[in-house]
This record gives sequence, C-alpha cells and structure tokens, in this order.
Amino acid sequence: MSEYRVKFMPQDIEVTVEEGTDLLTAQIRAGLHPDAPCGGKGTCGKCLVNVMKGNPTGVQKACTTKVTGNMTVKLQAGGKHSILMEGVQRKIRIASAVRSVNVTVQRCELGGNLSDWKRLKMAVAEAASIDEAAIRPNMKLISDLYQVLQDNDYSLNVVLCGNEILDLRAADDPVYVMAFDIGTTTIVGYLLNAATGEETAVASMLNPQSEYGADVIERSNYAISDGVEELSGLVHEALNQLIGQAVKKAGISREEIYMISVVGNTCMHHLFTGVSPKALVHAPYNPAISEGLMLRASDLEISIFPGGKVMLLPNIAGFVGADTVGVLLASEFDAQEELTLAIDIGTNGEMVMGNKDRYIACSTAAGPAFEGAKIACGMRGAKGAVDHAGWKDGRFAFSVIGGGKPLGICGSGLMDIVTFMLEKGLMDEMGRMLDMDEYETEEAKACASRIIRIGENNMKAFLLADEEESGSGRPVYLSQKDIREVQLAKSAMAAGITLMADTLGIEVGDIKKVMIAGAFGNYMEPHSACGIGMIPCELEDRIVPVGNAAGEGAKIAALNYEEYRRCEKIAAGCEFLELATHPDFQDTFVDLMEFPEQEF
Amino acid sequence: MSEYRVKFMPQDIEVTVEEGTDLLTAQIRAGLHPDAPCGGKGTCGKCLVNVMKGNPTGVQKACTTKVTGNMTVKLQAGGKHSILMEGVQRKIRIASAVRSVNVTVQRCELGGNLSDWKRLKMAVAEAASIDEAAIRPNMKLISDLYQVLQDNDYSLNVVLCGNEILDLRAADDPVYVMAFDIGTTTIVGYLLNAATGEETAVASMLNPQSEYGADVIERSNYAISDGVEELSGLVHEALNQLIGQAVKKAGISREEIYMISVVGNTCMHHLFTGVSPKALVHAPYNPAISEGLMLRASDLEISIFPGGKVMLLPNIAGFVGADTVGVLLASEFDAQEELTLAIDIGTNGEMVMGNKDRYIACSTAAGPAFEGAKIACGMRGAKGAVDHAGWKDGRFAFSVIGGGKPLGICGSGLMDIVTFMLEKGLMDEMGRMLDMDEYETEEAKACASRIIRIGENNMKAFLLADEEESGSGRPVYLSQKDIREVQLAKSAMAAGITLMADTLGIEVGDIKKVMIAGAFGNYMEPHSACGIGMIPCELEDRIVPVGNAAGEGAKIAALNYEEYRRCEKIAAGCEFLELATHPDFQDTFVDLMEFPEQEF
Repeated sequence: MSEYRVKFMPQDIEVTVEEGTDLLTAQIRAGLHPDAPCGGKGTCGKCLVNVMKGNPTGVQKACTTKVTGNMTVKLQAGGKHSILMEGVQRKIRIASAVRSVNVTVQRCELGGNLSDWKRLKMAVAEAASIDEAAIRPNMKLISDLYQVLQDNDYSLNVVLCGNEILDLRAADDPVYVMAFDIGTTTIVGYLLNAATGEETAVASMLNPQSEYGADVIERSNYAISDGVEELSGLVHEALNQLIGQAVKKAGISREEIYMISVVGNTCMHHLFTGVSPKALVHAPYNPAISEGLMLRASDLEISIFPGGKVMLLPNIAGFVGADTVGVLLASEFDAQEELTLAIDIGTNGEMVMGNKDRYIACSTAAGPAFEGAKIACGMRGAKGAVDHAGWKDGRFAFSVIGGGKPLGICGSGLMDIVTFMLEKGLMDEMGRMLDMDEYETEEAKACASRIIRIGENNMKAFLLADEEESGSGRPVYLSQKDIREVQLAKSAMAAGITLMADTLGIEVGDIKKVMIAGAFGNYMEPHSACGIGMIPCELEDRIVPVGNAAGEGAKIAALNYEEYRRCEKIAAGCEFLELATHPDFQDTFVDLMEFPEQEF
Repeated sequence: MSEYRVKFMPQDIEVTVEEGTDLLTAQIRAGLHPDAPCGGKGTCGKCLVNVMKGNPTGVQKACTTKVTGNMTVKLQAGGKHSILMEGVQRKIRIASAVRSVNVTVQRCELGGNLSDWKRLKMAVAEAASIDEAAIRPNMKLISDLYQVLQDNDYSLNVVLCGNEILDLRAADDPVYVMAFDIGTTTIVGYLLNAATGEETAVASMLNPQSEYGADVIERSNYAISDGVEELSGLVHEALNQLIGQAVKKAGISREEIYMISVVGNTCMHHLFTGVSPKALVHAPYNPAISEGLMLRASDLEISIFPGGKVMLLPNIAGFVGADTVGVLLASEFDAQEELTLAIDIGTNGEMVMGNKDRYIACSTAAGPAFEGAKIACGMRGAKGAVDHAGWKDGRFAFSVIGGGKPLGICGSGLMDIVTFMLEKGLMDEMGRMLDMDEYETEEAKACASRIIRIGENNMKAFLLADEEESGSGRPVYLSQKDIREVQLAKSAMAAGITLMADTLGIEVGDIKKVMIAGAFGNYMEPHSACGIGMIPCELEDRIVPVGNAAGEGAKIAALNYEEYRRCEKIAAGCEFLELATHPDFQDTFVDLMEFPEQEF
C-alpha cells in the first residue's frame, strides 16, 4: 500500500500516512489537536479543513476525507475557541484580521529576478491563503527585508492584518489585539489574544474629555470652537494609558498589540478620528463619515506596534453610532428571527427594533437624566449612589453602591424611587407629588415625614437622607422638578419605541425580547423601567440585560474579520428613524409623558 | 421636432439641441473644442466620447452619434494634447492619475442618514466615472468636510489621484505633477500641467549623494553601513530643492503639485524609498522590491501638496531598474514590431533587445569608463571636456564642451580618440599602442609627436594637450591603460549584445533600430561607438539618439495613468539575462576584447 505526505498549514507540519487514512487521523498523528466532538463519526461538522492541494480540494470534513495522494491541508485557525457575551450567548470563531503565519521564503537564484518582497508575498499568500495581488507594499518592512531574511535563514513568522503584512518575526509568539468602547463618560479597553480570543486584561477610565462637556452636544460645541485637535489628543492619550495598564497586567509589551478596534457614538467616533463633529450638531445631523475604517495607529498616535492598525466599526446615522453597530453585531440583530428591541442607554439612548427582515434605529437624548445630569441629587452609578429603593420589611429602604452613606441617586435608583412613589400613591399619573391629605396607602402615609420643601419656590421633594445621613453633608432627595426630568426622558424613549413599532407595522406586544445594553442594564430593575413607562409594561418579563454589548461588538470585530466586514452590512441594512422630524413625535411624546395608570 | 438636453462632463456644461443633432455639433454649440481633424466625416476616430446616459451608451464617435433623448456625455480629458519625445516621437493622450473634476454634492435631507463623505463620494464617482467603492477615506479631508461643503455651497472642484480624493477646492485651478529622473550623478525634474501636459519648468542638479560614492556599488556600500537614512534624506532634500526651483520658474506654489513620478536605477530607487540596497550588492543581486509604488509624499518628506502622492515606476531586476522601464515605456518597446536594441548608458549600462513578442534586458558595469571613472584624464560630459576628436583639415583636432582649453576627456571623446588611433594605425586590434616605426599611415606619422611616456612604468600615452594647452595646468592624454579600460567596458557591452541576440535566436544584423538613451546618446558618434566595437558595425546607420528616455518615461507615467499601469506589464514581460552567470559570458567577453579589424 502506498504512503503519502500530508502537510498541515499554517503549522507547516508534515506527516507520512498510508493511503486511505482519514485526515482527522493524520492530523492527530501530526501532533495537532483537532476539534471533533463526535469522535470522527462525521456528524458534528467541527473538523472542517481546507484542502489546498490534493483531491478533493476545498473545505472538507477531516474525518471523512481519505488520503489518496500527497496533500496540503489548511486548518481553521483557532477554530475551537469562542467568546461568550453576557446575557446573549454568542459563539464566534476566532479568525482575527490580525494573525500570524509561519512561512519559508524561496531563496533567490542567481539570474532569477524576483524581488525579496515578491518572494515574501508569494510565501505569505500561500501560507495564509490570501491573494498575492492584494498584498500592498509595506515600505518600512521592505527597508530591511534582505537582512531579516538572511538573519532568519528565510524562515519567518509573519504577522498579517487582513491582506497587509505588518511584521516579520523570528518566533511564532502570540499576537494581541485590544478592543475599545469609547463612551461619552467612560472608556473601556479589553486586551485579547488574537489567536485564542482569551481576554488577558481589562482596563477602564473616565473619558478625559468629560471636563469639556458632559454630553455629546457640549463636547461637540467645544470641539467646533477650534477644539477638535485637543479633544482628539485627549482620547488618544487616554487609550495609550489604558494600553499601558493592560499590557502591564498581562505582562506583555505594547508592541505585541497589532491592532485596536474601536466603537463609540458618532461624536466619540469623530473626535477619536480627528474629524470635526460639526456635521453632527447642525441640522440635518448626519455624520461626516459612516463607513468602517482601517487606519494607521501611528496616524492617530496610538502607541502599539509601529505600523499597527486601528479598526473602527461603521456608524449608522448622526446619532446612531458605531457603538450601536457593536450592539447589533454582538446580538446578531441581522439574524434575529424574533422581533427584538435593543436599548443602549449611555449618555445618549439609542434603540433598534425589528428582526433580520427589517430593523430600524432611533436615538433619543434620554440618557443624561438616567446618568444623573439635570437631576438635583443625580449621579452616575458609582460608589455612594443609591441604586435600588423600595418598600422592604415594613419601611422605605434603599441600597447604596459600595455600602455606606449615600452621596446621590443614579439612574436605576431614580427609576425605583419614581416607581415606588407612583405605585404607593405619593404622586399621581401626571407626575404631581400629592399632598399628604391625598395619601391613601399605608406606605405613603409611612413616608409622609420624608416630604420636604426646598429652594426659593418651596418645591416638594422626597428625602432619602438628611445632612447627617448623607455621605456629603448635603441632603439627598428627589424633587418635583427631577420627576419632570424623568418624565421628559422616559417619554422620549417610549415615543421612540411606539414610533418604531408603528413604522414596522407591529404592536409593541409583538416584541419577544428586550435587550438592555450598557452597564445601566445590569443595575436597572425591569419592573421599574416599565413602572415609569419607559418600556411598555407588557414587555417587563422579556427584558434581558446584555451587559456592555457595544464593547462585545468591538471584541468580536477584533477577533473575527468577517464579523467586522459584516458590520458594513448591518449598518447599511439598518433603517434610521429621525424622531425630531417625525410628524407624530410631538403628539406621541406628550401623550406618553404621563406615568402608567395605577390601581389602588 | 423634439429638443433634448445634452450635458458634457467633466465641464458640466449643458446645451439644448434638436433631435438628430450629432454630438460633435452639440459639443461645438456648448463652446467646447472637439478634436476632429476629419471635420466630422467619421473617419479620423479622434472625436471619441463616452456616453454615460443616453442611447447608445459607451464609447462612441461624437460625429456619428445622434441625439435621440437627454444625454450625459463624458469627454476624454485633454484628448488633443500630446508630448513628444526626442528621436522617438510618441504621442500620448493626457489622462494623468491626477485630475480635477467639478462636482455638486447632494445636500443632506433631515432624516436622510448618508454621511457627508458618502455623498461626496457619490458625486465624485459620477463626475469622474470611477467606482465609488474604490474611493478610500481621506481622514484629513473628512475632518473639515462639513465646513468645506457649507463654505462652497456644495459645489466643489475635487482633485483626484486615481481613485483617491486628494483635495477639495473652491475653483477649478490647474493641477500640476512633476516627473523626476534620479540618476546616479544627476537629478532632473520636469514640472508638468497635469491636464494639458505642458512642461512649465525643468530643474536639475547633481545628485548630492555623489560625495558618498560615484557609482552605485560605492553608494550602496556606504548606505548599508548604516547610511540608508542619510542618503535617503539627501535625495529627498534634493527633490525638494528642485521642486522649489521649478515652482519659482513657473510662478506657482508647491501645494499645486499633487504628485511626483520617479524613475531611477534600482539603487537610486531603493535609496529614494528608504530601502536598504543590501539585496542589490550581494549575490544573487536582486531588488528588495520591484513593483510600481504609489506612496504618500509626506512619508518621504517630499514637500508638495500635503497628502500628495509619489509614483515610482517598477524595477525589472537587481541592476535593471525603473529607469529602464521608463525607457521601455517612452519607446513603447512592448509594442515594437521591429527588432530593436535600446541602450541606456548612464553610470551603469542597461540594454534591452527584442520586440513586442519577446524582449530581454541585461546590465553591464560599462558605464563608469564612459563617464570618466578609471580613465586617467576622464571626466563627465561637462564644460571643458573633450567631446569629439578626429582628423580634420589635415591634422588631429578636438572640440571642447563650452570651448576654451580642455580639462579632460568625456565618454564620446574617448570613443572618438580610440577609433581615430585604431583607424589610423596608432594602435593594433589588440589595443596595443604601436611604436612609431610601425606607423603606416600619414595621419599616424603626423601624430608621432603626440606619443609621450608617463608614470613609473614609462607607459605610452596619446597627448591631447600639454601643461600649457590644458585648462588645468596638467596634461590631458589617453594612456595605454585607459585603452585597456575602454576595451573592458566596450567588450562587456558587446558581449551583452551578442548574448542577448543568442538568447533571442537572432543575428545581430537583424536588429532594425538601436536607440541610445541618456545624454551620452546625443554626444556619442555612432561611427565611434561602432569603431571601438561597442556596437556591431553593421548597426552603425541604425543608431538613433533618443535623449533622456528614462525621464520621458517618468513624464508619460505622470501624465497618463494607464501608461503607468502599463509599466507593470512592461516590467513583467521583460526577461532578464544575468551576464555574470551566463556560461558563455567569459568567452564572449574575452573574444570581443579585441577591436574591430582594420584595413589600411
């Protein structure tokens, strides 16, 4: 019986096997570790390989493909790894734009006139199964190519980003990518092994642009008065700090990171790329640029591998940014069978409704109230914030993030308190705080002592902690005016939901799943979100918090190039509903200002 | 009878004409000036237009296409202009990679979510007839796009380089390109109007790298001992100086130049792009990179329009560079029906032989002797050089470049003197200077007094000017050793010609045209080139000097993008004959060391 050689790429390992041996066995003999849960029965379909040379060529099941001649077989890189997303479990194949392949470059014969670069490209194209013609010249690398080839005896590890050759190395060391979610208020970075998907470090910090404006409008206004460069520089510096923290935690060097991926709202996107947000803040509020971008890290002064890349997910519309695309990618919105509503509440509130057949996005300025802005004792969900409140053990009680005395109220606390006041009859559906003589419930009467009067107007307020009970020495309360702010914010969200459903021609009740993205989603009580009427009551038990889905989207794009490219389709497939100009918006908004009707 | 509107692009001029009017007439009515030498008879084929919208679409003769509905017609940009190349007259259509088009960008509707960049791309793609998807983002330009659109009321002049958008301007001002020939010794730059092809200035200077080595080998050796950056910087600075001179002459600014094109031998090419020439000087002498390049001018610190481009023609082999590709492009070698030999004698000597069906290149180190190196009284073809010599009015006479006393002998003078000595019997076919008693001709006897003895070895030499007659106070002569150098140089060239002919399977006499490129070609006497046996005697009357064909190639590539892309095919189609390893080279070389046999 004949014997044949089978070569596995990109490992470049060769084994000799008898005719008729299956490729799964050959792979095991080669010391590789194929993923075949069915044990070679041909049923699981996990052992797919790409036969480059041999018969038959193309993608085949290793377990059922017999060796009948010499073969070259390409294994799916990192095929057995996956990352999980909180709430929405999504398994992805690791196939990052950034990867490394081992190559042996053909030596040049005297009289042969193929350049060093040409022979390197030929070797890389074969090892990485890419089109040689698509490899663009990297002059920095070509500069010393002759010496590098000599020093490594023509065998090299090549780091690629898509079709670009980024680096030539002696050893097959790990390559890293870092995924960033640039929020208006917070920036988070995830350091990932590009080949395994392993998350080796996370680092986060407040967006240093915050002091130039808490929300995107203020920030944009600062930028367009000649501040673009300054704000861009701040966010680049912030990313460099986070990269520094992450590589320190992981015990690697910056130069081992070959690419970063970035999501953020359109304003953060524009400021990060050095683009003026002028277009965003002037009617008709459209982005300066939407398409996905692959930029040079050095052009943005991002300190990773010199010659590394920056990947930005595309934007959808003026106020529906790459962060929303990240959410849609992480949740595979474009593949959802069921009608779904995704809500990303950050400093802005973006929502997407629909399923794979049709989905539509809108943006509301709902966020600031839930992040503490415009609320007298409002604050972000940080240490000292009242995050939950309600009737417990016969009295009104609240919890404080990190324990201790309260400093203020964050979004989830705000919703809980308003819902409590509403459900216990401390205020009516119009949002008016009732007088004590109007109280009908035991709970309301028990809280009567918490009603105080504040300010010049003697405005009613619900006291949580007086000077002594508060951590700051100043009382913590919720005022009548704060309740009006909550009404404005929640009715904007609710109007968006109503109008999206109208546009899709569905009833709100048809929605099967409500995904709440962002840290807020984890704190927020679904009962309170529905209690204040932000989300229709019938959807209460369909609410799922999905964590930082935008950040997950950035990770997925960083770890799978096809998924990155899918973003372009996701963005292009997403309709945009401009609420500001919708003929029914004002009416709907006003109609929904009221809180849900209560029964006592 | 109906009337229809015909819009001509890129001028964006619209005329209304009666049904049945031909497009040539419509074009004239629109105030345009079509090129139609046949007067609309449909015979010259010069009036081709591209019908974008209408019936029939596609490229049509304007004079025979009737208007039967509203039409949009794209005119061939600059179709009536051409540049002429010395010696080899080549007419090219002006269709530079760099061009400008007037566009009107669609305004964004409220609720429309197309980004400013997207709408700009749509407008440019239509106006320039390019694929929108191929337009890559220009972040610098996108940064202020909103404001630029506002300031110009959405009507702009857009400067393109290929599919890249380089600049947005208020007015349809001229755009310029500059073509450079970077020689080992001299750098020449030609400033050209990209739309008309007009040459508005020429500037040249010595290559400042010269002090680091006169030839490519010395220069490379300096570079590879850590001098790449230094030598790159010098040539970039030189180009910037030439650009400065050229724009001053033309009365324009640097920023109006949007691209430069560059040719040079492989060493100059590598040093210009910052690539180490190590690969070139070590066996097997192949380039680090060969393919044509489009680089950012800013990456090479070339001071033209910020965001401008640098176009480099491809190389062929280690010692057959982009300059040779320039010669082949200028002479349309790939379209030659007749068997042709192109010789570019610079500091190196590159030759190409063949025709459109097959052509082959080789390189010899013949140049230095003809540029004065290794010749006792040798010098370049500059003021004071003996450029021509021979028997005139009954005596040996010579001419000096710029008149006055001679300083030395340049290549053409060298050939003339050697040919004279040979033909008049002052030396034999072996290159041995005869003793006076061996002289047989009148002319030889008349020159007897010019034979002197020099140096420790009492070597024979032919005196042109003694201390008093010389411009330098040192005698000017040609020594026996110099004659040996000429023999080495000419036999290398002759062996190259012989072996190329052998490889092609032709007789040298089959060659119908010999093009001598480079300044040398203008000075050199065909009779002397054949007289010394550098070029076979039977080709003497087929020699044509073609001037700086390499530089012409750079101009053509700068002025016609298709011609630039043709270079890739020209280079790929060119076979390379490595003389150093050719089994017959040494024998042929030695055989051809003798001078042609003489009859007295």
